[in-house]
Amino acid sequence: MRGKNWGGGAKGGRDGRHRRPAGSGRPRLDRGGSPRPGQGGKGDPPPAGLVLLYGWHPVRAALENPARRLRRLYTTENALRRLAEAGVAPKCATEIVRPEAIAQKLSPDAVHQGLLAYADPLPVPALEEIAPGLVLVLDQITDPHNFGAIVRTAAAFAVAAIVTTARHSPEATGVLAKSASGGLEFVPIVLVQNLARAMGELKDRGFLLVCLDEAGEIDLAEAPLRAPLALVIGAEGKGLRQLTRATCEVRARLELPGAIKSLNVSNATALALYVARRALPED
Amino acid sequence: MRGKNWGGGAKGGRDGRHRRPAGSGRPRLDRGGSPRPGQGGKGDPPPAGLVLLYGWHPVRAALENPARRLRRLYTTENALRRLAEAGVAPKCATEIVRPEAIAQKLSPDAVHQGLLAYADPLPVPALEEIAPGLVLVLDQITDPHNFGAIVRTAAAFAVAAIVTTARHSPEATGVLAKSASGGLEFVPIVLVQNLARAMGELKDRGFLLVCLDEAGEIDLAEAPLRAPLALVIGAEGKGLRQLTRATCEVRARLELPGAIKSLNVSNATALALYVARRALPED
Repeated sequence: MRGKNWGGGAKGGRDGRHRRPAGSGRPRLDRGGSPRPGQGGKGDPPPAGLVLLYGWHPVRAALENPARRLRRLYTTENALRRLAEAGVAPKCATEIVRPEAIAQKLSPDAVHQGLLAYADPLPVPALEEIAPGLVLVLDQITDPHNFGAIVRTAAAFAVAAIVTTARHSPEATGVLAKSASGGLEFVPIVLVQNLARAMGELKDRGFLLVCLDEAGEIDLAEAPLRAPLALVIGAEGKGLRQLTRATCEVRARLELPGAIKSLNVSNATALALYVARRALPED
Repeated sequence: MRGKNWGGGAKGGRDGRHRRPAGSGRPRLDRGGSPRPGQGGKGDPPPAGLVLLYGWHPVRAALENPARRLRRLYTTENALRRLAEAGVAPKCATEIVRPEAIAQKLSPDAVHQGLLAYADPLPVPALEEIAPGLVLVLDQITDPHNFGAIVRTAAAFAVAAIVTTARHSPEATGVLAKSASGGLEFVPIVLVQNLARAMGELKDRGFLLVCLDEAGEIDLAEAPLRAPLALVIGAEGKGLRQLTRATCEVRARLELPGAIKSLNVSNATALALYVARRALPED
C-alpha cells in the first residue's frame, strides 16, 4: 500500500496500517490547530501542518506505527531510556530536554510523561474505502476527552473507522490524542460534511445502520446484528439528530437496570462495541 | 429508615435511598471542599459542611431524592420552569438569578444549565452495612471526571455501593457530581482507611472479590461470578496495587480483540459492570 501523508507534500508513511491515503482537500480531524480554551488550552500550537502528540502511550504508539512520520521528538533522559527498554527507537530528529521544557509547550495540567512529538497527520481513507467491518458513526460528540476515550476503546475493539462530521467535532488537540492513548494510530477518523448522506453511502455499501437510543425498540444485545455494521452514537443530552435517527435501520437501547438511565457517551459506546463485537467476533 | 445527614447535626433526610446514616467522624468523599486547580478549579468553595451541585441532572436528582437535604438553590427562570415541567419542586430556599450569577460561582468552563445548589452531604453506610449485592471497589482512581462517570454507570447498573480509600481519591467537587450526572444520589461512596482490610471484611461477609487485570487468568465473561460480588478496579497506568490484587479471589481480564489492550478506567468499569450484571441479573 502506498501511504501518503496528508498536508503539504510530506513524504513518509510506508506500509500504513491505514489502508489508503486521503484525497487532498478533504477535511481532517487529525490536523494541527490551536487548542480551545478550557480544554487543555494555553499550550503552544504545533507547527503548521503538523499534529502534537504527548504522553507515553500516544508517542510510543506513533513511534511504532510505520505509517506515522514524526518530525521532531522532545524526550527526557528517563523517557528515552524507557523507550529503549521497550525496544522502541526514535525515528526522527530527537532532542533530549528537561521535563520543564516539555511542560512549557503544554497546558499546565497536561501529563506529558517526558515525551512530546510533532508529527505529520496520518493518511485517512475516503468513506468508500473503509473496510466492511465494524464502524462507529459519531454525531456531534465535541468533548475531546470523551472523543479520545472512544477512539481508544474503538482501537481495543478493532473498529475499522470512525465517521464523524467536520463541524461539531472536537478540534484535534494533544488532549484528544492523549485520551486516545495511542488509539489514533489504529483507527482512522473519516470526516464528512453531511452525516446522513455518509450513512446513506454506508447503507448502499451493505452496512447495517444501528443507533443507540434510550427509547430504542430493542435491547442491543437482542438486536439482529451482522457485519458490516455501523454503530451510530449521538451526543449526550441532545441525543441523535432526527435525520440521523431516521436514517438508521435499527434503534437499540442498552438495558440499564438501575436508577440512572443514561450513560457518559464514551461508556455507552464501550458497551455498544462490546455487544457488537460479541455478535460479530470475526467481523 | 431513619436517615440522618452527616455533618453537624443537620436534620432532613427522611426515607433515604441510602439505607443508614454514617457514623460521625468517618471520612467522606461527599464533603465540601475547594476544587483542585486544573480540575475545574477557581469556583467558589461551598459553605462549610455543604456540598456543591450544579447542572440539570445532579440538581434535579438531588431535588428528587428524599434523603438529600438542600440548603439553597440558585436557578434561572428558564431552569425553574423546566423543573416545574418535569414535576420537580424546589424544596429549599430558592433564589432566581441570571445565568451569570451562577457562572460566577463556578470555574469558567463549567456547564451549569441554570442550576446550582448547596446541600448537606448524603448519609453513607458503614462497610458492614452495605447491601449484599454488586459492589465496586476503586483503588486510587483520582480523576474526578473518570470517578464521576463511574458513579453514573454504577447507578445505571444498580450498584449497592462504591468502596474506596479516603486518600488517593478525588476531592468531591462539583466536577465529580456533574460527571456523575445524578448518580451520587443513588450510589453511596464508602471511604475506608485501608482498602485491603476493607476487602477482607467484604470477603468475610461472603463477597466474591474479582479484580480487573490485563494479565488476568480468565476472561471476565467466563469467570464464575456470583452474588454478593465486589468488582475491584485499579487506576490506569499504575494498575492494581500488589496487596489489592493479592486479596482478590479471581483476577479477570476483558477480552479486547484490537490493537490497544487497555481502556480508559471508566470504560473498563462500564464493561465489567455490564458483564457482572448479566451474570447476576437479580443480585
